[in-house]
Amino acid sequence: MTGFVSFVGSGPGDPELLTLKAVDRLQRADAVLFDDLSAGPILEHARAGADLIGVGKRAGRASPRQDHVSRLLVDYAKIDQRVVRLKSGDSGMFGRLEEELTALREAGIPYEIIPGIPSAVAAAAAIGIPLTRRNTARRVQFATGHDVTGKLPGDVNLVALADPMASTAIFMGKRTFPELLEKLLAHGLPADTPAILAEDVSRPEQKITRATVSVLAEKLAQEVGSSAGLILYGPLAEEGDGFEPNQ
Amino acid sequence: MTGFVSFVGSGPGDPELLTLKAVDRLQRADAVLFDDLSAGPILEHARAGADLIGVGKRAGRASPRQDHVSRLLVDYAKIDQRVVRLKSGDSGMFGRLEEELTALREAGIPYEIIPGIPSAVAAAAAIGIPLTRRNTARRVQFATGHDVTGKLPGDVNLVALADPMASTAIFMGKRTFPELLEKLLAHGLPADTPAILAEDVSRPEQKITRATVSVLAEKLAQEVGSSAGLILYGPLAEEGDGFEPNQ
Repeated sequence: MTGFVSFVGSGPGDPELLTLKAVDRLQRADAVLFDDLSAGPILEHARAGADLIGVGKRAGRASPRQDHVSRLLVDYAKIDQRVVRLKSGDSGMFGRLEEELTALREAGIPYEIIPGIPSAVAAAAAIGIPLTRRNTARRVQFATGHDVTGKLPGDVNLVALADPMASTAIFMGKRTFPELLEKLLAHGLPADTPAILAEDVSRPEQKITRATVSVLAEKLAQEVGSSAGLILYGPLAEEGDGFEPNQ
Repeated sequence: MTGFVSFVGSGPGDPELLTLKAVDRLQRADAVLFDDLSAGPILEHARAGADLIGVGKRAGRASPRQDHVSRLLVDYAKIDQRVVRLKSGDSGMFGRLEEELTALREAGIPYEIIPGIPSAVAAAAAIGIPLTRRNTARRVQFATGHDVTGKLPGDVNLVALADPMASTAIFMGKRTFPELLEKLLAHGLPADTPAILAEDVSRPEQKITRATVSVLAEKLAQEVGSSAGLILYGPLAEEGDGFEPNQ
């Protein structure tokens, strides 16, 4: 058997933020399975004739089709195809990689993981701010705003997430942020902690909104919208500290 | 003035983990200022005739020459050069980007930040494990093991770092890990929490050591070595859960 699966992190969406290794694997793939967020111009690196299969799932979002994706990966590899499983951002972060790896392992199919630029890392760069600060933000944390049912996970570490001395990014958390913030405020996060909502990072439609955590929660309680959004808060997001958006 | 500085994250060391945008900026640079960890084959992308300046500092490590680096960036940009400031991993994470941005801002020099693959993200991919797990690791955190004086920072959030339900990466923490672990154990981290020491990730000399946090701390208390090392712990590092190193 020569079937092989490359899990490829596509980065945040800008095709120029693909790694050289990701481009190489796309060029050599017989089949590419991609999520919504990793589609578009990135797929132009695939060779003519490769099977391009949209599996219609945004990174990390629950989907009844997760089993179906794993089955497709196994089936393609079993007929000796080189498969690329394209996931937005980094495939190992909030991308349910675990379940697909398990399916491959059980079927005895070899794989590799090519890391990608996580969307929170791309967001900070696009805004022009450092994720860590020497004295005020020595810890960076990424958490998900929802579990497989779409709700705020019940076991989030509120002490960790309420720490005003960390840079925090909440993935897929637009809908649950008002509920999360209520808990964070109760755990000591100041209501005026600077926050950034970064939508469609690195894409032409990129939108950066600066606020405080409480203003942002109010805004999101009223309207969530359909874009892929990332919430950043902590000292990294402070306005007027000189690290202004550079675009 | 046409001088311009691109902060470019070089990723963990494997030149194939550069982004297309990083390669483009290297090819167009008149001058490249690089740290130890971002040197080697990556610099081959620079055009013949570009000034290549090693600033001899490992990412995030304190150096008396930090001022000197900032001055060099400003001086090159002032004589209308396109400058690339190459930093290992992602430039916004533990790379003291803040200080160099401040110098550029004060001198009125435009810049951009090109994100790179953080070394912790590359380490997990190289080992073949997901950084997040659907039920056991919904939070990922990166922290630094030393402050500018080389000591364990006094203000680390021990509750956050002792959480066994998070995937944690300690950057530049080989020397201070025994001291840190003592505090983490006092805050409830189980002594048998799985741990991985990832050294020289993505390079030919890559070395992955699996242990528990307590065994790893004992080992590092005896011998630290000179390699760039990253410590990962949490459910991500568990042995025998099927996600074995794939190389």
